[in-house]
Amino acid sequence: MSKLRCHISMSLDGFVAGPNQSAENPLGEGGEQLHDWVVPLAAFRAAHGGEGGEVNASTPVFQEATANLGAAVMGRGMFGPIGGGDWGDEKWTGWWGDNPPYHYPVFVLTHHKRDPVEMAGGTTYHFVTDGIAAALEQAKEAAGGKDVMLWGGGQVIGQYLAAGLLDELELHVVPMLLGGGSRPFGDLASTGVRLEQVRAVHAPGVTHLKYRTVAS
Amino acid sequence: MSKLRCHISMSLDGFVAGPNQSAENPLGEGGEQLHDWVVPLAAFRAAHGGEGGEVNASTPVFQEATANLGAAVMGRGMFGPIGGGDWGDEKWTGWWGDNPPYHYPVFVLTHHKRDPVEMAGGTTYHFVTDGIAAALEQAKEAAGGKDVMLWGGGQVIGQYLAAGLLDELELHVVPMLLGGGSRPFGDLASTGVRLEQVRAVHAPGVTHLKYRTVAS
Repeated sequence: MSKLRCHISMSLDGFVAGPNQSAENPLGEGGEQLHDWVVPLAAFRAAHGGEGGEVNASTPVFQEATANLGAAVMGRGMFGPIGGGDWGDEKWTGWWGDNPPYHYPVFVLTHHKRDPVEMAGGTTYHFVTDGIAAALEQAKEAAGGKDVMLWGGGQVIGQYLAAGLLDELELHVVPMLLGGGSRPFGDLASTGVRLEQVRAVHAPGVTHLKYRTVAS
Repeated sequence: MSKLRCHISMSLDGFVAGPNQSAENPLGEGGEQLHDWVVPLAAFRAAHGGEGGEVNASTPVFQEATANLGAAVMGRGMFGPIGGGDWGDEKWTGWWGDNPPYHYPVFVLTHHKRDPVEMAGGTTYHFVTDGIAAALEQAKEAAGGKDVMLWGGGQVIGQYLAAGLLDELELHVVPMLLGGGSRPFGDLASTGVRLEQVRAVHAPGVTHLKYRTVAS
């Protein structure tokens, strides 16, 4: 069955982006370093059209995380700067250029209706205005039996977790302290959501912690 | 050389105590569950004068964390309820009864001078009013070559981290969501403190992540 999966890099003090995020600095101060473990990987470079790179204990984790995906869901705040003028006149087409690294349909949660935008390489942005369950349903339909990736941000991950709609969660715990910024699950209150450990992988500059949610 | 070590249980969403902490509920709502991994261990029971219990992958981690300790430092907020009347008239002697589980000198950071309090079993509470560096110096002196444990709370851990005085940090990551409460490092701002991964241990209901700090 098609699953909803999420994986996200987090600092030791529990932040997925640094303080003072802005359109110029979408990951906040220090936040770029959260991805220092993945950028050097040969598997990551290949997925982004590059060459060379490393093979280490993170390689199979990255490959597993990116395998078998047929669609994705992301929040409005991850897709583009909130209140950006380009959004208003419908010119904003995400942070990821003309040929985004997704290569599958991406369902963006928003309050503003907008026609789908087809990008190069198989990525189409769909804008969903009727909530997280509807977005997931459309994404699963589009995924054709493959899994759906929940890209974030934290507020949206928290909403899917609280609603019991997330099946797998992987945290890439990076040994750095951001001191502030975005939390991984937004304002999620204690929900009684139960998680079960799947595995821990110790890799250079990161520890990968995988969980599955358990029906209460 | 004597090291300053710290280990603490943290929820997946980065809290070391749940919301609404009080004198009646010092770990906050849901916070008790952070210790569900350790309480059943035979090694933990033995250390607290009990019998029976489990042996699992957490056992060597617990044994390592509690070995070779000669003294400890803790914050005023961990020692007792802030603003408690018993503190004012010097009757408060910690949460841990007449024979506390430390069995070594414990240096409590506070703004209020008070004479040392000697408990049964080798624990003596000393009250230090001249700051974290002084408390650590006194604790190392008292530890006689063994290590010093930093018990918390988060604000105090953050202060030692930021000052570059903490040598080892272990997070026991528990697969639960508290949704709010106390942060592991208080209001620590990004400090440029560098941490290096030592190991990750996957155990029942917890993953143990150990780090050492690296001089920048």
